[in-house]
Amino acid sequence: MTLRTCVVGASGFVGGELLRILLQHSGVEVVCATSRKFKGEYVYRVHPHLRGFTQLKFVEPTIDAALKADVVFLALPHGESVKWVPKLYESGVAVFDLSADFRLKDPNAYVEWYKWPQPHPYPDLLQKAVYGQPELHRNELVGAKLVAVPGCMATASILMLAPLAKHGLLGGAPPVVDAKIGSSGAGAEGSIVDLHSYRTYVVRPYEPVHHRHIAEIEQELSLLAGKKIRVAFTPHAVDLVRGIFATGHTYVERLPTEADMWKMYRALFGDSKFIRIVKDRLGIARYPNTKYVIGSNFVDLGFELDPRLNRVVTFAAIDNLVRGAAGQAVQAFNVAFGFPEDEGLRYIPLAPV
Amino acid sequence: MTLRTCVVGASGFVGGELLRILLQHSGVEVVCATSRKFKGEYVYRVHPHLRGFTQLKFVEPTIDAALKADVVFLALPHGESVKWVPKLYESGVAVFDLSADFRLKDPNAYVEWYKWPQPHPYPDLLQKAVYGQPELHRNELVGAKLVAVPGCMATASILMLAPLAKHGLLGGAPPVVDAKIGSSGAGAEGSIVDLHSYRTYVVRPYEPVHHRHIAEIEQELSLLAGKKIRVAFTPHAVDLVRGIFATGHTYVERLPTEADMWKMYRALFGDSKFIRIVKDRLGIARYPNTKYVIGSNFVDLGFELDPRLNRVVTFAAIDNLVRGAAGQAVQAFNVAFGFPEDEGLRYIPLAPV
Amino acid sequence: MTLRTCVVGASGFVGGELLRILLQHSGVEVVCATSRKFKGEYVYRVHPHLRGFTQLKFVEPTIDAALKADVVFLALPHGESVKWVPKLYESGVAVFDLSADFRLKDPNAYVEWYKWPQPHPYPDLLQKAVYGQPELHRNELVGAKLVAVPGCMATASILMLAPLAKHGLLGGAPPVVDAKIGSSGAGAEGSIVDLHSYRTYVVRPYEPVHHRHIAEIEQELSLLAGKKIRVAFTPHAVDLVRGIFATGHTYVERLPTEADMWKMYRALFGDSKFIRIVKDRLGIARYPNTKYVIGSNFVDLGFELDPRLNRVVTFAAIDNLVRGAAGQAVQAFNVAFGFPEDEGLRYIPLAPV
Amino acid sequence: MTLRTCVVGASGFVGGELLRILLQHSGVEVVCATSRKFKGEYVYRVHPHLRGFTQLKFVEPTIDAALKADVVFLALPHGESVKWVPKLYESGVAVFDLSADFRLKDPNAYVEWYKWPQPHPYPDLLQKAVYGQPELHRNELVGAKLVAVPGCMATASILMLAPLAKHGLLGGAPPVVDAKIGSSGAGAEGSIVDLHSYRTYVVRPYEPVHHRHIAEIEQELSLLAGKKIRVAFTPHAVDLVRGIFATGHTYVERLPTEADMWKMYRALFGDSKFIRIVKDRLGIARYPNTKYVIGSNFVDLGFELDPRLNRVVTFAAIDNLVRGAAGQAVQAFNVAFGFPEDEGLRYIPLAPV
Repeated sequence: MTLRTCVVGASGFVGGELLRILLQHSGVEVVCATSRKFKGEYVYRVHPHLRGFTQLKFVEPTIDAALKADVVFLALPHGESVKWVPKLYESGVAVFDLSADFRLKDPNAYVEWYKWPQPHPYPDLLQKAVYGQPELHRNELVGAKLVAVPGCMATASILMLAPLAKHGLLGGAPPVVDAKIGSSGAGAEGSIVDLHSYRTYVVRPYEPVHHRHIAEIEQELSLLAGKKIRVAFTPHAVDLVRGIFATGHTYVERLPTEADMWKMYRALFGDSKFIRIVKDRLGIARYPNTKYVIGSNFVDLGFELDPRLNRVVTFAAIDNLVRGAAGQAVQAFNVAFGFPEDEGLRYIPLAPV
Repeated sequence: MTLRTCVVGASGFVGGELLRILLQHSGVEVVCATSRKFKGEYVYRVHPHLRGFTQLKFVEPTIDAALKADVVFLALPHGESVKWVPKLYESGVAVFDLSADFRLKDPNAYVEWYKWPQPHPYPDLLQKAVYGQPELHRNELVGAKLVAVPGCMATASILMLAPLAKHGLLGGAPPVVDAKIGSSGAGAEGSIVDLHSYRTYVVRPYEPVHHRHIAEIEQELSLLAGKKIRVAFTPHAVDLVRGIFATGHTYVERLPTEADMWKMYRALFGDSKFIRIVKDRLGIARYPNTKYVIGSNFVDLGFELDPRLNRVVTFAAIDNLVRGAAGQAVQAFNVAFGFPEDEGLRYIPLAPV
Repeated sequence: MTLRTCVVGASGFVGGELLRILLQHSGVEVVCATSRKFKGEYVYRVHPHLRGFTQLKFVEPTIDAALKADVVFLALPHGESVKWVPKLYESGVAVFDLSADFRLKDPNAYVEWYKWPQPHPYPDLLQKAVYGQPELHRNELVGAKLVAVPGCMATASILMLAPLAKHGLLGGAPPVVDAKIGSSGAGAEGSIVDLHSYRTYVVRPYEPVHHRHIAEIEQELSLLAGKKIRVAFTPHAVDLVRGIFATGHTYVERLPTEADMWKMYRALFGDSKFIRIVKDRLGIARYPNTKYVIGSNFVDLGFELDPRLNRVVTFAAIDNLVRGAAGQAVQAFNVAFGFPEDEGLRYIPLAPV
Repeated sequence: MTLRTCVVGASGFVGGELLRILLQHSGVEVVCATSRKFKGEYVYRVHPHLRGFTQLKFVEPTIDAALKADVVFLALPHGESVKWVPKLYESGVAVFDLSADFRLKDPNAYVEWYKWPQPHPYPDLLQKAVYGQPELHRNELVGAKLVAVPGCMATASILMLAPLAKHGLLGGAPPVVDAKIGSSGAGAEGSIVDLHSYRTYVVRPYEPVHHRHIAEIEQELSLLAGKKIRVAFTPHAVDLVRGIFATGHTYVERLPTEADMWKMYRALFGDSKFIRIVKDRLGIARYPNTKYVIGSNFVDLGFELDPRLNRVVTFAAIDNLVRGAAGQAVQAFNVAFGFPEDEGLRYIPLAPV
């Protein structure tokens, strides 16, 4: 089976990463890559690492172009995908939307978190869309035609806290999630603060109390917990290109044992090909570290217990462009279409880098 | 007045920074710089940026050598200073100790936090030592002969939370302090994980629930609050050379207003030459950022209020080698000896870098 | 004496660096900082490191505004300064122009190297302008009212080769100058390739055979040699913010001895406060290194002899924003106005950074 | 066919990279990984990115252990391999030696370039060893049992200049090769200057006139040219982990045309899977750039002509750990054993990183 795929919004970092992965996927032919800004230009002139791997040129992003594919990956800004999805979905094309436009089940949430003037115009599609985190929604993904690929920082935060949510440990004060992210998360259309000279040597918070990923983190953790969970989420820009590190600080009434923790994590993720629990007594990486997931679809999870304060500290490290976007999209696609879940994603992380 | 000063432990990063600052201090002559490893070698061969500024050679670290100075800065490992301080102190030499050996008032705390086999052997000296954070102990510093210069991450954490402590906002769940620090914090005697190829591209936690700086953070905040305060402190190594960023997450019963916050910070720090409150509606730095304090003695503090969760988020950015060590030592020295508090420390931060 | 100075084009990196230096210069008051883009905005909102050091706001760049100053520093793009200089010069304001517009003595050179449609319109002013490299034009600078501050890569290249030029060693094949430069050289108005994610991890050449600095390098070396000297200059972008490193490869007929080399460099630069010859048998920096000049006005020069191939290898490291621009401008200003040559420039380099 | 392979010296960067590649090679089983320092330890504790891909533990490096494999990759320091190779070779094990010990055909060259006290003790084996650069020695590699894998900087330098050598353009002044290399080239046993705080922000030359790779560069170019070629080679440490960029400056009597250049490069490399000629009029990478080869076995080559000075400027960018070491070793192994030349090496470079 070779599926014709189209990457819409292919000139950005996520688009480039989708191309990198799909060009090496055995079940896929990339038939189109769109870019308004670079239409007519060879893809490799914008993504020089792809030189020699594709002779495609960018085309104008139109729904007609996308409709020629069996599968469409939308790497568009928030608020843009919603203009594409209904028509593609109706036409039977499978859609993997990497924007936030179909991640939230509550139509009103878009007003609060994304400043939309109105509630989401397609509440029915919201319900049909599968939240594309395979470890948590694997069954729903099988055969799915509309997948909302999770946000990058949401992915790290949710997976790190999912076992706690599931086992009722998130009942007290909202867990603090302090996240650190590299520059590629800001996209290839940078503003002044994204310039190299401004973006090196930084640790700086942004949207420290009302970041949009909170909505999906709380949605997914609440689903797992069976009750409303709130999260205190604060992201920071750090001097990396790729990489997200999330640290969770959760006060609990009764501290689990280390064995409890292992059990909870293994119960939820034991069968996942892409989750590694990193908690070691020896070696140079006893907890997760962004350094050791770069270029891969892995989620490295870890934890530590603070008996002094009854605090559970959790850690997650991912490559934001792979596991936080393109890789997770392809993983969800693999599940949806019956490919091995790791097809096209079997890269060992690249280290040192 | 020109004071003869000696830097003991002068080949490391903190030692180098002490030399950089003291060589440009109008009231000081650097008469010795010790290094066991490099004794006999020109200082500029280990600190090449000092070439042209000093013809000193490193000498063997001995108490006799130090006794020839009026003022001694000890940049020694924890557990070493304690062997030097009593004799120097008795001899009337003023001592600025950059290790942890005289920071904690409770002699037993050294057993818990520094794994000493016995309580501190000089409990009387502990009481005489002034905790050298000038903004909080300015009066005690005047004329002080033994100053325990605070830890780098402790400095950021304490100053950021001091106004909350003082105004009774730290009464609930222990504030979470999530810190990020550059590689120079690990010193110049690196282990394998400090090598460039291993230390780039990292975000990784270390000692995530029992870091030694907790002891002094809690000591100082408790002093300010007038009751026992505990702190959930978790540091992370990030890909910087210099710089510490601390983020505080404090749940409060009743959220202060923004005006309250400004008042609290100004009340405590309004007269300090080295504290800037960075909380802006406009511009490219609306919160603190490590990038804009490098090379300076500034502590940039900021905050944000989270009305959704009754959370006060606080921020601090410092240069760990200046404000987290050498600069703060010289600031304390200036207060102790009656120099203008910013003598030798009037550098504008270097940016971009 | 306090001179009123105006920085025109103050929102870029060079403008910010001029402000940083001038705000700490004892003989200067900064009375205006212009920026078309940010007019009306506080300077510290664009240069957050300057917070607390100035309450100036950017003003519209107009000649009238500049005329209120005694001294004007023009940090404008090439081709812009030429519109400002004649009027300022006529009015008796001293002008330090950091663009290339008055560096070349030959009016036609602007057609060849800067693609001007016509020769330079003010050939008389070209003759009056002093090329502001104090080590080579110190006498001419005294009292100068129009100074063309050298280009950043030209500064490193010229100073490194000047002793060879002066002593007749550049007579054979043109020396190869292979230069490496950080991102701040590209200015604060970045294009896509200047974004952090694109600009990290690069070593890439640009304008490898016809870079515009060649014109001034050849002009100055020819002047020193007393005959036409040509240079094969190839710059590379590397992953630094600040810093230029130039490596010269010169084949000579008869290899000088090491003692000869020292003599030549000392003869030319022995009395300069800002030139350090770094050529050591021991220590961690036996040749120049960008790392040890950051934040300072130093030019670290070095060399090695290749007896196998009769090649003289020369090295120069500078901070492009200080010695390659703002610092050199202030150094030239100091000479012009009779200040100590290092007034405002006595910073020890910041290391490690 | 599944070949049993052993990686000797597996705890370093090159060893780690060999493991990363071989663990994904379809024709290979990794049966041993040696490390004196880490024997008994799980491989993933030293190479955390390999967690989940192997349960191997390091074993003591002994010839007996290696003899159990069909193929041995020696990632040992120079001077060590020579102790292993004769015995392994006699026993019929295929050896891919990544040290310099069998690269030079002239036994005396080891005295000059590697400071051996005596000429090479196995001159016969030197003759049997194939210099493992597949693009230049593909035929000799078929069936080879002893392969000397080229040095990292030699690889970039030789391939970049090979077409010029072959076509007689290297007859005049020795070409200048100015190289830039990342920190992983120094290996995982770092000295003080390899620490993160010392190794960031550097551009510094090392061994600027007598680097050991000169010997193999001259050997190979002389072979291609049919006469003795000398090269003026100067490497620089830059602030990268991976990556080598080499710039060649060659004065020629008669400048070739651009079409000539394309022809020469295509003639030699047209059929190579791993060589890309990057010379474009448009796009964000018109010349090679380290950024776009990271994680891959590609050699990106480019050039520019300088008609002003009759200079041919050539460029090469490689990942030093892949194409400069482990990847080239596996490529040579593939040719030797009849695997597709790119087996295990089909990675698209990872960008941005």
